[in-house]
Amino acid sequence: MALVEERLKDVALDSPGRLGAACAATLSAGGKRVRPLLTLLCARPDRQLGEPVVRAAAAVELLHMATLVHDDVLDGAELRRGRPTVAKEFGLDVAVSAGNFLLARAFSELAGTRDAAAVAALSVAAVGLSEGEVLQRDQTRVVTLARADYERRCERKTADLFAVSCRLGAGLSGSEGGSVAALAEYGRLIGLAFQILDDVLDCSGNEADTGKRPGADVRDGTITLPLLFALEVEPGLGESLARDDLGAAEVATVLRTVAHSGALERARAVAMRYIEDASSVLSTCPGPVERELLAQVAAQVVARYS
Amino acid sequence: MALVEERLKDVALDSPGRLGAACAATLSAGGKRVRPLLTLLCARPDRQLGEPVVRAAAAVELLHMATLVHDDVLDGAELRRGRPTVAKEFGLDVAVSAGNFLLARAFSELAGTRDAAAVAALSVAAVGLSEGEVLQRDQTRVVTLARADYERRCERKTADLFAVSCRLGAGLSGSEGGSVAALAEYGRLIGLAFQILDDVLDCSGNEADTGKRPGADVRDGTITLPLLFALEVEPGLGESLARDDLGAAEVATVLRTVAHSGALERARAVAMRYIEDASSVLSTCPGPVERELLAQVAAQVVARYS
Repeated sequence: MALVEERLKDVALDSPGRLGAACAATLSAGGKRVRPLLTLLCARPDRQLGEPVVRAAAAVELLHMATLVHDDVLDGAELRRGRPTVAKEFGLDVAVSAGNFLLARAFSELAGTRDAAAVAALSVAAVGLSEGEVLQRDQTRVVTLARADYERRCERKTADLFAVSCRLGAGLSGSEGGSVAALAEYGRLIGLAFQILDDVLDCSGNEADTGKRPGADVRDGTITLPLLFALEVEPGLGESLARDDLGAAEVATVLRTVAHSGALERARAVAMRYIEDASSVLSTCPGPVERELLAQVAAQVVARYS
Repeated sequence: MALVEERLKDVALDSPGRLGAACAATLSAGGKRVRPLLTLLCARPDRQLGEPVVRAAAAVELLHMATLVHDDVLDGAELRRGRPTVAKEFGLDVAVSAGNFLLARAFSELAGTRDAAAVAALSVAAVGLSEGEVLQRDQTRVVTLARADYERRCERKTADLFAVSCRLGAGLSGSEGGSVAALAEYGRLIGLAFQILDDVLDCSGNEADTGKRPGADVRDGTITLPLLFALEVEPGLGESLARDDLGAAEVATVLRTVAHSGALERARAVAMRYIEDASSVLSTCPGPVERELLAQVAAQVVARYS
């Protein structure tokens, strides 16, 4: 991971003026670095870690950061991980350009591997991310949302990038096709669990732990799995969730109703199922593969929310 | 070009909901398609046109369109080519996502060639485009701007993409290194001329011909070559150009002063010099190369502004 961090730092140093400052702020704000970690752990453990894998790890994190910067523009968010967002600190114009810069740098980082299949895989994930953003907005305040449509959004927004993070680590370290496919599927399942648990946390977390105010999805009308489950038990919630002018007290009431409905436990159980499926896929992966460490990552995704 | 248009149309058809509608609107708004034309014309004329070259032509236009969509977000522009911008018609959120989608699709289109060097070249241009955007904003209302800094911005914003458009056409059709380098330089020079003439047109054009109101650069404080030349003759202009609250009458007065200063002719002469240099590069290009057609493109870049 130290090599990945160094590559990420070079990206900010490479870019001039306010662009560099905005990228440096985004990079140094930290984050869990789950995606590059997956890339490194999916590399063949019986070979030395090569530059292509490190480049891929940096690339998936750069692409992820690009979407965070742009998401904050679209959401008008002022804080991320307890710090001012790029949009807030540097202005919308720098934030849009910084997102584009990070997206383009993700591709130049990966193109340095000279592996066209790797670039193709990342570009498919990047296309999906932008589709996921628009899907989320098209689905805003649609309280009749089907669970399949919620899951499609999770795939595009989160799981596809987790899958490609694993795929690149496996593929660029010379794993054979069966392992690459199994690890990509492991990543997809972890990604789905990760997104669902993130959506649960938005309902149940507190600002001191998460660095952001809970209830953002309720306020923004983003219909997530816990909200869908709560709607099944308390259809009356639909009226509140369809409104775009909820006050803080009303958001708190919605969150209490969701918590009392059992929806949080149910959504957590769905996420746990994905984690179990991910472990199953891992155990059937032909290998060689870092089974133990990857199982630990799966466990940590869950631990964050328990 | 028909094959390129088909590929571009497929991009819009591929994407769901409002994203597809926004992309379709951007694509069908037309435009000169100069960049993909350069890609096709830079392909070796002694070989049949292959799919990689057509993919590259589509990719450079997709990247160009992505920047247009995002530029309109940043500028708050309501019209482009006489039609509502994506930002105006579909909202800022769809516009940011549509720009990201087009950028990602540019890379997936080109990654389909399986040529990693081509993807690397495009990613360098994409990084430069985002740097150019921020440079332009950092330089806003800086009336003491050095000409070299203006030119650096033109390279990042325009000339690099023209250069890579030519480089990809030549490289992906199997041209030898000398030809690829010469054609990339030809593209760079045409791109510089194109940008300077565009900046002249913003001072001298009228809405009926150009589809946009003249004087946008004066209003926005974007210091261009004609404005730099006018400032040499009429330093008093600096006071107006440094202001962010010019009314329509004041913008018109500035444009008249610029026209009377001889700055437009001088800037046009600089552009003509780049066009001549481009022709010289072309004549020394080892070939085989479409010399006549490429010379015609150079002539057309100029003709638009005479």
